[in-house]
Amino acid sequence: MSESPLHRSFALLGSTGSVGVSTLALVERFPDRFRAVALAAGRNMAVLAEQARRHAPDLVSVADAVSAADFRARVPEFAGRILVGPEGPLAVATHPEADLVVSALVGALGLVPTLAAVHAGKHVALANKEVLVVAGELVTRAAREKGVALLPVDSEHNAIFQALRGHDRAEVRRLVLTASGGPFLAHPAADLVNVTVAEALNHPTWKMGPKITIDSATLMNKGLEVIEARWLFDVDADHIDVVIHPQSIVHSMVEYIDGSVLAQMAVPDMTIPIGYALAYPARLPLDYLRPLDLPTAGTLTFVAPDRQRFPCLDLAYRALRAGGTMPAVLNAANEVAVERFLAEDLAYREIPALVSAVMDAHEPAPASSLDVLLAADGWARDAARRGDGRVEGRVAAQR
Amino acid sequence: MSESPLHRSFALLGSTGSVGVSTLALVERFPDRFRAVALAAGRNMAVLAEQARRHAPDLVSVADAVSAADFRARVPEFAGRILVGPEGPLAVATHPEADLVVSALVGALGLVPTLAAVHAGKHVALANKEVLVVAGELVTRAAREKGVALLPVDSEHNAIFQALRGHDRAEVRRLVLTASGGPFLAHPAADLVNVTVAEALNHPTWKMGPKITIDSATLMNKGLEVIEARWLFDVDADHIDVVIHPQSIVHSMVEYIDGSVLAQMAVPDMTIPIGYALAYPARLPLDYLRPLDLPTAGTLTFVAPDRQRFPCLDLAYRALRAGGTMPAVLNAANEVAVERFLAEDLAYREIPALVSAVMDAHEPAPASSLDVLLAADGWARDAARRGDGRVEGRVAAQR
Repeated sequence: MSESPLHRSFALLGSTGSVGVSTLALVERFPDRFRAVALAAGRNMAVLAEQARRHAPDLVSVADAVSAADFRARVPEFAGRILVGPEGPLAVATHPEADLVVSALVGALGLVPTLAAVHAGKHVALANKEVLVVAGELVTRAAREKGVALLPVDSEHNAIFQALRGHDRAEVRRLVLTASGGPFLAHPAADLVNVTVAEALNHPTWKMGPKITIDSATLMNKGLEVIEARWLFDVDADHIDVVIHPQSIVHSMVEYIDGSVLAQMAVPDMTIPIGYALAYPARLPLDYLRPLDLPTAGTLTFVAPDRQRFPCLDLAYRALRAGGTMPAVLNAANEVAVERFLAEDLAYREIPALVSAVMDAHEPAPASSLDVLLAADGWARDAARRGDGRVEGRVAAQR
Repeated sequence: MSESPLHRSFALLGSTGSVGVSTLALVERFPDRFRAVALAAGRNMAVLAEQARRHAPDLVSVADAVSAADFRARVPEFAGRILVGPEGPLAVATHPEADLVVSALVGALGLVPTLAAVHAGKHVALANKEVLVVAGELVTRAAREKGVALLPVDSEHNAIFQALRGHDRAEVRRLVLTASGGPFLAHPAADLVNVTVAEALNHPTWKMGPKITIDSATLMNKGLEVIEARWLFDVDADHIDVVIHPQSIVHSMVEYIDGSVLAQMAVPDMTIPIGYALAYPARLPLDYLRPLDLPTAGTLTFVAPDRQRFPCLDLAYRALRAGGTMPAVLNAANEVAVERFLAEDLAYREIPALVSAVMDAHEPAPASSLDVLLAADGWARDAARRGDGRVEGRVAAQR
């Protein structure tokens, strides 16, 4: 990235979500370095209104006309454009003044505008897992062709990105993603049959939304991160491992061919990876954060994941090795399974069974276009909504 | 370093010591990449003879005529030159075919030839602590002027060197050296009064020579490493910390201004940092070493050093802050104190008292030349040999 980090204009997809809010809180401390030129939100107008007052973007995008009217009433002095509907995130992602787009929409919603940002030559700070899980091959190819950087915001991928910097990628032996293990790490497997929604939402180290918290409990979140890592760092499934590290201090690691392991550690605070991605290749002086004090942190432990108790991890490896449309199917089936679990329409233990059944019924096609991937995604969602731990027959993806 | 790592000719100062033996064992696995052109040893002719047979150097240097005769008798077919006395290490360090010199002599003996190697434009893989403790300012200035790299072989400094690579040194917040804590980490302070030589020599994680093992027990070793780090990485004493990490897995760390901590971890095996320094900027594929498996390693712990129980650590900081000739005095007084402890002529607890008393009696001068430093070293040795935990009066260093 050639532009000076001292003046970066960026667009933000998902400004009212957890990463969006943290991003704007961070840049408020560095007003000379960053300007938010465009914000895409959904329906949370209380938060967007306050963000618009503080940051005065050129453009905001909201879900619908009701939200737009609400926004206008809250910020009558707003002088920028207000867009409504699916065109809004596209306009935000391709805002001519932005040289970087923070992609922090949740779910497949972020895929189309993120790919548009890449095609428009924007660097992307990527916090949206689905972009690479669903369309990793397409997005990374487009980024290479356009010469734009994909800067990971996930703490794990950001750690690997830092641990690779300056070192020869041909000398990497493997990537090691750490996982907190979620709330069920110490529970005997038998107990997992009767897990309640409240238990699954009680994550020990990170405060996050309900979908990602359930994915952390099942380790599907880590499986999706393995798929992301494959595309971000061009390392195949056989050279990406997962280790459980309940303290969430070592955010991930790179092992090199000489046996050296480089790890990035930090207090668990998303401000650090967000700041690293925003200011890359510079670092921001985050002196106001509590520093990592290892004597206080005390003990760091590491255990191999129990693949019997956490079958979602192997489902993700299976999808990655199958390739093509299969990771999109895994992701879509998992999204529906988690929705159904949160709605108490599916037992906790049925989440992997349902995802696996949908994958069994899918014959993957090459990831040749966004349309093919989105069609596979749609098919998998339907199948998972209908499925009851079993999906009948076998359906070939559209080619 | 511009030369190809695929063909590196090197000279080795201290070939029969621990680092020297490990260095030659390593390069035997990569015969196409390395050639040992000159070896400096002392009196261990059994080991040197075998090394000369395997590596056929152009030049060997030995302590004296008796050793030379012994060597000739053991390797009658040796076709290279054999040098005797102090000129030998100088010739080894400046061998015209060597582009890198491994500096692995123990003690102040290595200082003069290592400085000669730098002046001759050789890159230096540095395993000799005293070079930078005694003459850090002189040696690093000469290295800068000659444009040669000082490549640290100590596992701690090698870890920091790896964790700095590719990152902006202006963004470093602090360096954190890890220390195993030695055999007395868990002992109550009162017990240290009656420590025996055998107890102090029983190091929990690294197998090393007696001097460095005692220095590990007192933490003077870590103090000397703080001084080395100051010169290797141009970071002042206020920004170098020490943390006790008994498992010796995290070899050291760099904390950056954004709160990210980059750590290098590995199994405790000197082959890894030796290989990193030898092949830099490439890494060697050390597939024959046991890889680091964190689930097997289990638990990593970190505690702040108890500065009351380990006063040698603060003595080193004090010497570094006093500057000039004071670190040379610290080092010399400590060498004599440890010799006297090993000879049962000084109690364990008197080691820091004696070093402190010698420092109290020294008025430091600027480190303007090697002569000034060696004179301070000589004075401190005399004072420590005579001293009985107290040194009378106060002596200004020669200027």
